[in-house]
Amino acid sequence: MNYKDMFSARTEEVRLVVESYLPPVEGHQSTVLAAMDYSVRAGGKRLRPMLMEETYRLFGGQGKEIEPFMAAIEMIHTSSLIHDDLPCMDNDTLRRGLPTAWVKFGYDMAVLAGDGLLIYSMETAAKALSMTDRPDLVARCMGILAEKTGIFGMIGGQTVDVELAGKPVPREKLDFIYRLKTGALLEAAMMIGAVLGGGDEKQLKLVEKMASCLGLAFQIQDDILDMTSSAEVLGKHVHSDEKNHKTTYVTLEGIEKAKQDVERISVEAISCLHELPGQNEFLEALIRILVNREK
Amino acid sequence: MNYKDMFSARTEEVRLVVESYLPPVEGHQSTVLAAMDYSVRAGGKRLRPMLMEETYRLFGGQGKEIEPFMAAIEMIHTSSLIHDDLPCMDNDTLRRGLPTAWVKFGYDMAVLAGDGLLIYSMETAAKALSMTDRPDLVARCMGILAEKTGIFGMIGGQTVDVELAGKPVPREKLDFIYRLKTGALLEAAMMIGAVLGGGDEKQLKLVEKMASCLGLAFQIQDDILDMTSSAEVLGKHVHSDEKNHKTTYVTLEGIEKAKQDVERISVEAISCLHELPGQNEFLEALIRILVNREK
Repeated sequence: MNYKDMFSARTEEVRLVVESYLPPVEGHQSTVLAAMDYSVRAGGKRLRPMLMEETYRLFGGQGKEIEPFMAAIEMIHTSSLIHDDLPCMDNDTLRRGLPTAWVKFGYDMAVLAGDGLLIYSMETAAKALSMTDRPDLVARCMGILAEKTGIFGMIGGQTVDVELAGKPVPREKLDFIYRLKTGALLEAAMMIGAVLGGGDEKQLKLVEKMASCLGLAFQIQDDILDMTSSAEVLGKHVHSDEKNHKTTYVTLEGIEKAKQDVERISVEAISCLHELPGQNEFLEALIRILVNREK
Repeated sequence: MNYKDMFSARTEEVRLVVESYLPPVEGHQSTVLAAMDYSVRAGGKRLRPMLMEETYRLFGGQGKEIEPFMAAIEMIHTSSLIHDDLPCMDNDTLRRGLPTAWVKFGYDMAVLAGDGLLIYSMETAAKALSMTDRPDLVARCMGILAEKTGIFGMIGGQTVDVELAGKPVPREKLDFIYRLKTGALLEAAMMIGAVLGGGDEKQLKLVEKMASCLGLAFQIQDDILDMTSSAEVLGKHVHSDEKNHKTTYVTLEGIEKAKQDVERISVEAISCLHELPGQNEFLEALIRILVNREK
């Protein structure tokens, strides 16, 4: 099995773990539960939980307590997509080839489904408490997850992105947006894997840097794909950045420089990986696949 | 000092604790930080953190680790108000005598400020880890807070409330809405006080019931005030339930029955309190003040 096939197989395995933590769609609040369920099942690469689990394995982790956190981080990611797509934000009607949550369930239910997933992630993460005798590590990981999701993480990045929509963005602000909007949640994913796997503080710093580089390379690749790919391959509207007069890494630096930087930054991520103890060849391959992806 | 004066003094003390945990309004994401700050400082009775601390004291708690949770629960409450006021929900322009967050900061920033506060609550709660040698209790309380906030708590109640807006609501669904939308967060407040104060499982059940009764009495009183009070006293639009053709406890049961039930249910809450060990006369007075309030 080559690494691309392994990636597909792992995506499927991770999907099953994530979906096993979704609450059943029933009861008085079934509409919003359906909206949460629909949005999580709509798919995607399951990148964050996969990176979390692979980092956990890198550090020798073998328990089940990683699973609630895998589900939690995918819920948070999905929550952000639901809110990003709202009419008052990006006003997007198509995501992963399907109608966005607000189109399908209404504006109010989409706000509540995003809220619901955001906090259900923490309810889910807390389930790890009954799966380990290290409540201190579980609490610490819940703190990391909240911090990297919040105003000094993903939501902070989204805020600046939304405020500058349609305006020229200086490089310094673009870096800030990329570091927070995409990077922070990848950092949370890999740091949680490291903490639960027993990594020490110095290793945790290195993991954070590795994830930060991966996030930046991943986001620049996203910009490249928005410019060069087709809606059929990507399953969402393309050239949306151009249509929205959005400043991206590609519009600031040009496509050739962007491609070179993706390569350079991904090499930096991999060199962090090599400094860490343990071996996980698939994790290295995964980083390469993600930054060289075509959709 | 009588209990009403004590209540005012405690509101002020609790306000200072809560505000001390607000992040500074600065940096690239300062707009959304300003919206979060504005909304939390807009005030209110600081009921949830006060009940949390008083329950903690009832159980003999004397540490500082309660404080991050006090701030956290007020952040969650504020987050829900910000999202409830949005045009796609209640479309309210006035709250506590001030323009609502979406009016002042824009629709997009209000969505993000609500998201920001919702998850910053967990980041804040995690600070308790460095203030106690019981990480297991901190993690458990984070779990309780998430559960009572989420889809099986406050957000679940809000969902059903929004879905039924303008439609006749059967008593069974109204009970569900009240139990979740108002009750759940009061339950979280008092349960967290009990857990951090060292209460056992049996006591925790009793605390949950006490809080549930208090929540129901409080919400029915809210309906009564919406019908009978003035905008000047209340600091928000009155008769909004009537204008929105909203089913409330008062429209279903009549104002006299509603008043009797507030009394009956608050007596039930106080009898739970008497079954618990410890003594906290102010907590008992507080319950009476809350259910007999005029604003």
